[in-house]
Amino acid sequence: MQFEALAQQYKTPLYVYDFDGITSQYEALKNAFKARKSLICYAVKANSNLSVIRHLAQLGSGCDCVSIGEVKRALKAGVPPYKIIFSGVGKRDEEIKEALECGILMLNLESEAEMYRVETIATSLGEVARISIRVNPNIDPKTHPYISTGLHENKFGVDLDTAKRLYIHAKHSAALDPVGIHFHIGSQITELEPFYEAAKVVSDLVRNLKALDIELKFFDVGGGLGIKYSEEETINPYNYAQVILNTLKGLDVTLVCEPGRFLVGNCGYFLTRVLYEKTNAGKRFVVVDGAMNDLIRPSLYQAYHHVELLDGKGEETPADIVGPVCESGDFFAKNIMLPLTQHNDVLVIHSAGAYGFTMSSNYNTRGRAAEVAVEAGQSRLIRVREDFETMIALEEACL
Amino acid sequence: MQFEALAQQYKTPLYVYDFDGITSQYEALKNAFKARKSLICYAVKANSNLSVIRHLAQLGSGCDCVSIGEVKRALKAGVPPYKIIFSGVGKRDEEIKEALECGILMLNLESEAEMYRVETIATSLGEVARISIRVNPNIDPKTHPYISTGLHENKFGVDLDTAKRLYIHAKHSAALDPVGIHFHIGSQITELEPFYEAAKVVSDLVRNLKALDIELKFFDVGGGLGIKYSEEETINPYNYAQVILNTLKGLDVTLVCEPGRFLVGNCGYFLTRVLYEKTNAGKRFVVVDGAMNDLIRPSLYQAYHHVELLDGKGEETPADIVGPVCESGDFFAKNIMLPLTQHNDVLVIHSAGAYGFTMSSNYNTRGRAAEVAVEAGQSRLIRVREDFETMIALEEACL
Repeated sequence: MQFEALAQQYKTPLYVYDFDGITSQYEALKNAFKARKSLICYAVKANSNLSVIRHLAQLGSGCDCVSIGEVKRALKAGVPPYKIIFSGVGKRDEEIKEALECGILMLNLESEAEMYRVETIATSLGEVARISIRVNPNIDPKTHPYISTGLHENKFGVDLDTAKRLYIHAKHSAALDPVGIHFHIGSQITELEPFYEAAKVVSDLVRNLKALDIELKFFDVGGGLGIKYSEEETINPYNYAQVILNTLKGLDVTLVCEPGRFLVGNCGYFLTRVLYEKTNAGKRFVVVDGAMNDLIRPSLYQAYHHVELLDGKGEETPADIVGPVCESGDFFAKNIMLPLTQHNDVLVIHSAGAYGFTMSSNYNTRGRAAEVAVEAGQSRLIRVREDFETMIALEEACL
Repeated sequence: MQFEALAQQYKTPLYVYDFDGITSQYEALKNAFKARKSLICYAVKANSNLSVIRHLAQLGSGCDCVSIGEVKRALKAGVPPYKIIFSGVGKRDEEIKEALECGILMLNLESEAEMYRVETIATSLGEVARISIRVNPNIDPKTHPYISTGLHENKFGVDLDTAKRLYIHAKHSAALDPVGIHFHIGSQITELEPFYEAAKVVSDLVRNLKALDIELKFFDVGGGLGIKYSEEETINPYNYAQVILNTLKGLDVTLVCEPGRFLVGNCGYFLTRVLYEKTNAGKRFVVVDGAMNDLIRPSLYQAYHHVELLDGKGEETPADIVGPVCESGDFFAKNIMLPLTQHNDVLVIHSAGAYGFTMSSNYNTRGRAAEVAVEAGQSRLIRVREDFETMIALEEACL
């Protein structure tokens, strides 16, 4: 990847995505599930750029969406409605209404109260809502508490007994069509066991429901496949698919998988230039032009991102890589070994394709970075750098 | 405050600011310093809405800015250049150039390397840059590590010896005019002692510099005055002013103070409506329509915000207040006592005026909230709610 040339052409701070890499990840996962009918629904929240979604749509991907905004992004990018799932614990009435009107594949329900609202709204529209129910299997995914979602102490899904009760209600409702079942135990998971345990529990429920004459068509295993940020041992997609498929013997269901980070995480790079080197009482800081408003993962999740100094040479000494934002929480890395830098040197922050730009803000009135796609050796802008006028437009109208 | 009516009129999620409250806070602080010439420079990063800045400007406030974007906001809102300070550890070349061209009061420098860049740029423009130097006094402010800034392990400022060396260089430079000195030891500070210690150390340096014939005009004590989120004992502005003024005896300097949170924090409210109540294995969740993308402080700083249920009655039981975003980190409060809620009930999240909207993002493709000002009993929109088309405009142009 020609990082220096990209930084020169598009300026910094900059997000760069390797679209060929995204293709490889998609194909690897799709192939792993080839023993069964499957639908990969890209988790848009990981990186919601319209061009990223379009790229995946062209490969055949559907989308897992968690707001009506994400559903609209998927449609805008060319994903057919019958490949779109709408998940999330807090859907507003107008979101439910709009999703039903779009004719998406299914709404993934996360509580009893939500089921009743969907039923009420579908009834008033004269529609039948295709639904799945998110089961919380109470499995510890062994990841960061903020991205662990499959424990009862988390807000997500319903327990097994509640799920069964809701399916029975839905079966007898004129406005609900229970077509799927869903679980998602967390994000950035690097062990097979939690996936197996969750799939086992949920597939047993599917058999149980079948005996009650409730035939589900979609078995949605969520996402959560971890990627390599540092030295993690990650899961091979083939092994991942095997442990899940093994739990589905005798069931005629389409496998749905909702990868986000797995498809885009390691295909993204955040480029930033050095502004200053400074030392405070012996402690070394490299101040760069990117900041926590661009990439909040180090600050929010204490996440590790590999930092590479382009053309760096000479002796390495420990340094903190920090941004211009006026908080001590504004850092990309702490105490990493790095050669001495010069003003304008480019640093590459790796594994920034997921939960990077999507979480970025205008904090400190910093315009959000530009985004660039690289495909077959060619680069193109996929989001224009945000300027001052754009940032203030919605306020200026009221001044 | 008519929260229910405001939620009805402007929809939720919504930020509401009490402009009369902001006036009171400003006056209290200004009066506390009346024994000496003083300039209050509002720290724009706390709440950068143009109407908030204009309101403070009309009271006589200047602005402390940490990016050229914030400088432009201040100018747009009517703050005169001679009341604008530009701070921050990472100013880009074009930011320095633009700030010099605007003729602001001073650039607050945070490293030796930055001083040389400012000198180079000022020279090339044929300008003389008015500067202050941020001294890092190595004082523990006893606050959250992410918002502690006055320790050597933080990235901010330079130590006392370096500061002295830089002032001597600046005095002899044709492109630099050292007019001020600055320190800022952190945010949300609730004890007087750290302020006193820092002011003492820095005022001694001012005396020291005076003996070297370097006469500074502005003594900038930064911000950091804590507010009451919960049961904190906070500092009285009068006592705060006294401990600082006591360190300035015999010095003919204008006192500069940079409050952010103190002026706006408790004058802001975040309104959100209940979507669903749910329980997972006995644990109660109230799912609301606001989320971590709107107000990230609970998630990022484990910050406490008082949550009030309007017209709530009946038995209170423990609940987590959570948003629709697909992360367990998406919460406003954990394990608080709250009566049973109904669909569409309004919750008021208190003390949301500082570091609320300014840190908000489009995560999960959620449009940012609207902002409303209330003044003398009248409400008005000060930022339009962000819609889907606005969110995707910079990407759609590239699709």
